[in-house]
Amino acid sequence: MFQQISIIGPGLLGASLALALKSRGLCQRVHIWSRRPETRAKALLADWCDASFEHAPEACKGSELVVICTPVETIVPILKEIAPSFDKGTLITDVGSTKKTICQGASSIKGDFNFIGSHPMAGSEKTGMSHARADLFQGAACILTPGEDAQNAEIVQLHQLWEAIGMQVVTTSPEKHDEIVAHISHLPHLLATSLCSYLLEKEVGWQQLAGGGLRDTTRVASGDPDLWKQILEHNREDVLRAIDGFQGELQALKTSLLNKDSAGVISRLERGKRFRDQL
Amino acid sequence: MFQQISIIGPGLLGASLALALKSRGLCQRVHIWSRRPETRAKALLADWCDASFEHAPEACKGSELVVICTPVETIVPILKEIAPSFDKGTLITDVGSTKKTICQGASSIKGDFNFIGSHPMAGSEKTGMSHARADLFQGAACILTPGEDAQNAEIVQLHQLWEAIGMQVVTTSPEKHDEIVAHISHLPHLLATSLCSYLLEKEVGWQQLAGGGLRDTTRVASGDPDLWKQILEHNREDVLRAIDGFQGELQALKTSLLNKDSAGVISRLERGKRFRDQL
Repeated sequence: MFQQISIIGPGLLGASLALALKSRGLCQRVHIWSRRPETRAKALLADWCDASFEHAPEACKGSELVVICTPVETIVPILKEIAPSFDKGTLITDVGSTKKTICQGASSIKGDFNFIGSHPMAGSEKTGMSHARADLFQGAACILTPGEDAQNAEIVQLHQLWEAIGMQVVTTSPEKHDEIVAHISHLPHLLATSLCSYLLEKEVGWQQLAGGGLRDTTRVASGDPDLWKQILEHNREDVLRAIDGFQGELQALKTSLLNKDSAGVISRLERGKRFRDQL
Repeated sequence: MFQQISIIGPGLLGASLALALKSRGLCQRVHIWSRRPETRAKALLADWCDASFEHAPEACKGSELVVICTPVETIVPILKEIAPSFDKGTLITDVGSTKKTICQGASSIKGDFNFIGSHPMAGSEKTGMSHARADLFQGAACILTPGEDAQNAEIVQLHQLWEAIGMQVVTTSPEKHDEIVAHISHLPHLLATSLCSYLLEKEVGWQQLAGGGLRDTTRVASGDPDLWKQILEHNREDVLRAIDGFQGELQALKTSLLNKDSAGVISRLERGKRFRDQL
């Protein structure tokens, strides 16, 4: 499929993408750039990496596909830096968890290239290249957010790329994407974080009593705080709206419990079960 | 260890306990009672069940250990019904998720028996005998809540029982137990339920995009609504206090995000990660 691709920032997602493409024979050569010399050196030892570059623009020369896999705040600044080095017709995307700020930033950069945002909804609270897996994307959803000036051929090519590594691909606007993930990803993360931050105040002995319920409910709170701060700030308005909506729901359940309104309590437990059983 | 035990209400926990004891050779005979004829018939087909009774008091005759494994609201009424049939020296416990209301109710029942509350913190959103597993309790915590009149020998015997099937046993008061589980079990359940109930209002298509984060965060919301309504109502005051505390934490995170206070956002993400990494 590709003779050469560039992974800019080969962490969990970038390295897994390179692995997934190479293991399926979908890509001949992988070039990488990382800010950190130790990551560049480590990548070179891996089977999936063919060349490692100190400067990001060099890593992009001659590639048919460039995937920016850095933390969300750095995606647009890096795109600006590497854009002059793209060959004509290069497909450029990212794997950031927010899309509106990134796609707006990308469209403001002048140059003969088209950027189409991607959000593969795969990952883990474990970050970094060392956790990379060829099957990380298998069965998960990927949201594409092409801008108005995106070429249909490029949208199709990107669609096929993610589909080829096992993802279910949907397309929507950057704005709609951010609204959706505020609810199904960022809000759950905030709730896990707030629960853990609250329980940290309590007696240490309580932790030893935790069952599988608390462990599962809070797993995502182990995620990297700096990466998540960037995501929450990029998607501030939608996240605030999602928190508002959730607060109303929690308050209603609390009121039912306070007023000994059993029918109200059970109705919310049933609604919750109905949604969860459908997942 | 025991010649004969009685499991009153052999659902997931009761049947798993019988399996765990029998598979370790810790019990010769298991008698069961269930309200439902089909459960009584089904239990008789299982290796771990030796006799099935239509009336609960009959199922208790001659047993050295009686474990009440029914929904929390029914534990005290059933104890009242079966108490007259206990042999002298019978050890009686339960597996209910709340302890204050149950232990108070048990101590008000007249009779020559001692009841000591147990809460094995094992289980699953999947209920019922058919999901029973001999290793359900392995590695999990069990909280004992002996009353003031409990005999030391009986506390030790109960401690050994749960320890023998792999549990880490701690002892506390029924009041402290309810405060703890309100925070580490009932609050996480309510948050999962409220999140799912809130997301049920949103577009159906969003569900297909959910990643592992949402699935893990909300797993417990699949639990039985009627069982959970009973638990929440039994532990109303402590659960309301836990919700209050959580609401304060979530509001503080929301305020930091609203005020673009990055240091505040990251500090809460870090606190959450610190707690979760310790679990």
